[in-house]
Amino acid sequence: MTRRIKLVLEYDGTAYHGWQSQKNASAVQDLLQDRLKVLLKEDVSVAGAGRTDAGVHARGQVAAFSTASARPCDRMLAGLNGLLPRDVRVRSCEEAPEAFDPRRDPLSKTYRYTWLDGAAHPPFWRRYSWHARQRLDDAAMAEAAAHLVGEHDFTSFRAAGCSAKTPVRRILKAAVARKGERVTLEIQGTAFLHQMVRIIAGTLHDVGCGRRAAASVALLLQARDRKLAGKTAPAEGLVLWNVEYGAIPRPGRRVKGVLVGPDPEEP
Amino acid sequence: MTRRIKLVLEYDGTAYHGWQSQKNASAVQDLLQDRLKVLLKEDVSVAGAGRTDAGVHARGQVAAFSTASARPCDRMLAGLNGLLPRDVRVRSCEEAPEAFDPRRDPLSKTYRYTWLDGAAHPPFWRRYSWHARQRLDDAAMAEAAAHLVGEHDFTSFRAAGCSAKTPVRRILKAAVARKGERVTLEIQGTAFLHQMVRIIAGTLHDVGCGRRAAASVALLLQARDRKLAGKTAPAEGLVLWNVEYGAIPRPGRRVKGVLVGPDPEEP
Repeated sequence: MTRRIKLVLEYDGTAYHGWQSQKNASAVQDLLQDRLKVLLKEDVSVAGAGRTDAGVHARGQVAAFSTASARPCDRMLAGLNGLLPRDVRVRSCEEAPEAFDPRRDPLSKTYRYTWLDGAAHPPFWRRYSWHARQRLDDAAMAEAAAHLVGEHDFTSFRAAGCSAKTPVRRILKAAVARKGERVTLEIQGTAFLHQMVRIIAGTLHDVGCGRRAAASVALLLQARDRKLAGKTAPAEGLVLWNVEYGAIPRPGRRVKGVLVGPDPEEP
Repeated sequence: MTRRIKLVLEYDGTAYHGWQSQKNASAVQDLLQDRLKVLLKEDVSVAGAGRTDAGVHARGQVAAFSTASARPCDRMLAGLNGLLPRDVRVRSCEEAPEAFDPRRDPLSKTYRYTWLDGAAHPPFWRRYSWHARQRLDDAAMAEAAAHLVGEHDFTSFRAAGCSAKTPVRRILKAAVARKGERVTLEIQGTAFLHQMVRIIAGTLHDVGCGRRAAASVALLLQARDRKLAGKTAPAEGLVLWNVEYGAIPRPGRRVKGVLVGPDPEEP
């Protein structure tokens, strides 16, 4: 009998060329498949909810695979964590319905981008944040981010290589908060274009530094021109924070989201 | 004219053999002296408040040196951070009285020890915490830690190689707190014996795991026998959090602490 297994993963992306399998480069997906083969003595194909770029971290990446193994989930979790390097951890492991598709089923995903704007970049945060060389105007950044909420054409915030069929995406939340020297963008959307969050972060960085007005973000959306937005923010500040699912679909049924349906086009 | 400069340093100790200069090993003190020589074009001797062990971190290490340079403090801070690797940062740089001695003048020091006790050790915390394989009883750990407050003979919590003349130390605070999966010991004392905080952390770990009663810590103090205490906790969970000074001494005058005087014997 085949079982479908859902994993929630946390990783420090510093040493990886992103989630997705790469020729001649280390990807988290390959690492996981490799260790699952050792553990389960079978070839498994692991699907992930989101393709994090090289250097991007995850606190709540979701992955799934099918297996003939009868090993209980708690032993699978302990076994995998025993085989994986310390920068990748399985946070939870549970059985899912046969049709569970981590990439197509999410109702939304949440990313966090973190800046630190003190005089020196704290060593403990050096791999997980972007150091701003001046104090960021977080109120202006919050105002700018608010313009992104809703359904928009995000062509201005789309990387050149993006293969999505449509540039329209729906943002459910885009909040900027400060705690001491730490400024965080929390952005939740039904789906994201390639490097969209990092281009948004680069643009908000300009706003925080006073090089761009908060209101200009609304005009940027209308302009539909990548060249007018800010630079792509460094990968190290970005974390795939959470993937939101509705009820896990029963076999043969597709999820209909409460907020919106899943987006099969996500790159 | 010679100026005395006080630095507050933050470092990730993972890659270092501790604070103090070492033959054939990289110490933070050597690194700092090396970079100051590049910056100031003179040989300087840097003194530190506490000798952190190999792998131990600092959030508020204090260091001082004397220099003939007239370079303003803010430019010294920026220049040093430009020359230092990203795992060592200067948080502040200011002029101090000629007699300022970072090792002898502190009224107290504060260390933090951090455990994480979830099913998996979070990658972002892997270098800065000890992963407990079972849920820790933080209430019992707090009760055990409370027995350490006050002036005691800490022979049971003293590493074999410790060269201090007396094993008597005064602990001002020893508090255990939980936030989610994270359990933290914050311990403040007028001074500490060699590896004292790590041996205390190892002992509290046993208490948290139910292998040792909270009240036994009072008996341990009386026993004066290192073999009866817990093992030395891993260095990676320890951070020299802060060094507390009174008013910086005027030249030629020694500080008399409000709480207690400085302890010249600290290893």
